[in-house]
Amino acid sequence: MKVLVIGGCGFIGSHIVDHLLAQGHSVRVFDRQMERLRTSLPEVEYILGSFGDHMAVIDALAGVDAVMHLVSTTFPGTADLNPTIDVQDNLVGTLGLLDAMVGLGIARILFLSSGGTVYGPPDIVPIPESHPLRPINSYGIVKTAIEHYLDMYRRTRGLSTIAIRASNPYGPRQAHTGVQGVISTYLSRIREGQPLEVWGDGSVVRDYLHVSDLAELCALAVASDKVGAYNAGSGQGTSIREIIDILSDVTGAPIEPVYKPGRAIDVARSILDVSRARADFGWESRVPLPEGIAATYDWMCRQ
Amino acid sequence: MKVLVIGGCGFIGSHIVDHLLAQGHSVRVFDRQMERLRTSLPEVEYILGSFGDHMAVIDALAGVDAVMHLVSTTFPGTADLNPTIDVQDNLVGTLGLLDAMVGLGIARILFLSSGGTVYGPPDIVPIPESHPLRPINSYGIVKTAIEHYLDMYRRTRGLSTIAIRASNPYGPRQAHTGVQGVISTYLSRIREGQPLEVWGDGSVVRDYLHVSDLAELCALAVASDKVGAYNAGSGQGTSIREIIDILSDVTGAPIEPVYKPGRAIDVARSILDVSRARADFGWESRVPLPEGIAATYDWMCRQ
Repeated sequence: MKVLVIGGCGFIGSHIVDHLLAQGHSVRVFDRQMERLRTSLPEVEYILGSFGDHMAVIDALAGVDAVMHLVSTTFPGTADLNPTIDVQDNLVGTLGLLDAMVGLGIARILFLSSGGTVYGPPDIVPIPESHPLRPINSYGIVKTAIEHYLDMYRRTRGLSTIAIRASNPYGPRQAHTGVQGVISTYLSRIREGQPLEVWGDGSVVRDYLHVSDLAELCALAVASDKVGAYNAGSGQGTSIREIIDILSDVTGAPIEPVYKPGRAIDVARSILDVSRARADFGWESRVPLPEGIAATYDWMCRQ
Repeated sequence: MKVLVIGGCGFIGSHIVDHLLAQGHSVRVFDRQMERLRTSLPEVEYILGSFGDHMAVIDALAGVDAVMHLVSTTFPGTADLNPTIDVQDNLVGTLGLLDAMVGLGIARILFLSSGGTVYGPPDIVPIPESHPLRPINSYGIVKTAIEHYLDMYRRTRGLSTIAIRASNPYGPRQAHTGVQGVISTYLSRIREGQPLEVWGDGSVVRDYLHVSDLAELCALAVASDKVGAYNAGSGQGTSIREIIDILSDVTGAPIEPVYKPGRAIDVARSILDVSRARADFGWESRVPLPEGIAATYDWMCRQ
């Protein structure tokens, strides 16, 4: 199968490309720039362009059997600063992609959604896919609207759509500039001898998923005929305090976190129920958190 | 209180203006064109402009205490034809309005949402406001995203936001070109001696609300300090067959409907639970359906 990976040079995208290649697929990547954190792969066809450039996206679709849409021009923590740009770039951009696929007769699309933001404060934990979508930030509002449109295009325009609602991915090649995951941000600060800042008392619980596990599920899912929404998480909750203990073990560094006032945007506990992905794909996360964090630190030290 | 009514020359807007005036408020209307179905009111300040013209909207905000946002550039039945335009006009346009209000320090906004589309196929009937939002068409997807942003702007930017989720409004001054309500469309066809077309077997149940009842609730709600979502319906379900029986009684015309295949977009039963509006505003619909339909027909015959 020939797969177009939009956003394939990013953190999650580059791992998905690895898994697609390992499963024997042919891969074309569309992204703004080449991979920054490793040399490009000779067996991959790279097309550089902006997701906002509709004609460039259409050109990139030529001859592919399926599309993986991993692009977000915004981050959960910063999208609120300008919701209009978030909607323009990501929602309008995605509708352009879907319309182009309909026009070209390309039916299959996997969309990387966000299990950490589409549900909002959960009624129950672990959160099943049937939980109401009540996003409280722009990032989640846009992902939710895109999921609604995917369902609509499936019912009314013949697309075959699947959304993977990822929890908190971490691992090698994640940026550590502070806007993405806490694990890479903390590891980076430890390396630089900086203190770790904790918002609140460190009791906030998240579901951390190694990027390789997430990428494996995405590669399986796009090649299947399954549709609708699937949670992708470890199914396990880990508090910030527990993360810091693991970081201390892995790095051998004594850590004295600096506690700051809690942020209103942080829900107390977010853990995904992943039984649907287990049942339909025989998938579950395999990388234990201490092992995954150690591998991430190794990778970081080799940069 | 000085209220800006965006979309105040439309079907629902013109009735809301009447109720605002009756309650002693000062009213400015912003709309694309003057009212088509009656002469303009001397006590109202009219500003003509497009909701997509951001600077015109900002100008219209000067000096008002509250905003009622009733504009939709699309209809439920037609928005699916071009979701990109639906998002651009209505979602992006609304974000521009909200940002302008934040900048000008105008806190209060009432948004006219859609109880018939934001819930999607309901799990329970009558539908309470807490029901998950699972819209299946573009009109409902955009209304849902706007409601999510209203909640976000309330939490993070100091706006005071309320959304009225109207059921199926009908009454005098409703267009009868076929894209709006079934009651005015049927009445118009009866007047013209045309047959009535029924999609499906006529068993589809909807919650019909006289526009004057809806307008009364909106006028009460904008002047209150209540926030969040409120259903606005009669709380009663009426089937298309029952509507046709009432139409026959009101008009004295024998009616032989033409049955056509059911549409996939029609959910079987949609009735709103209005206990929240009753509890918080002491409001409930007052116009019985036969009386309201008779008044609508009278109005139509006088045009």
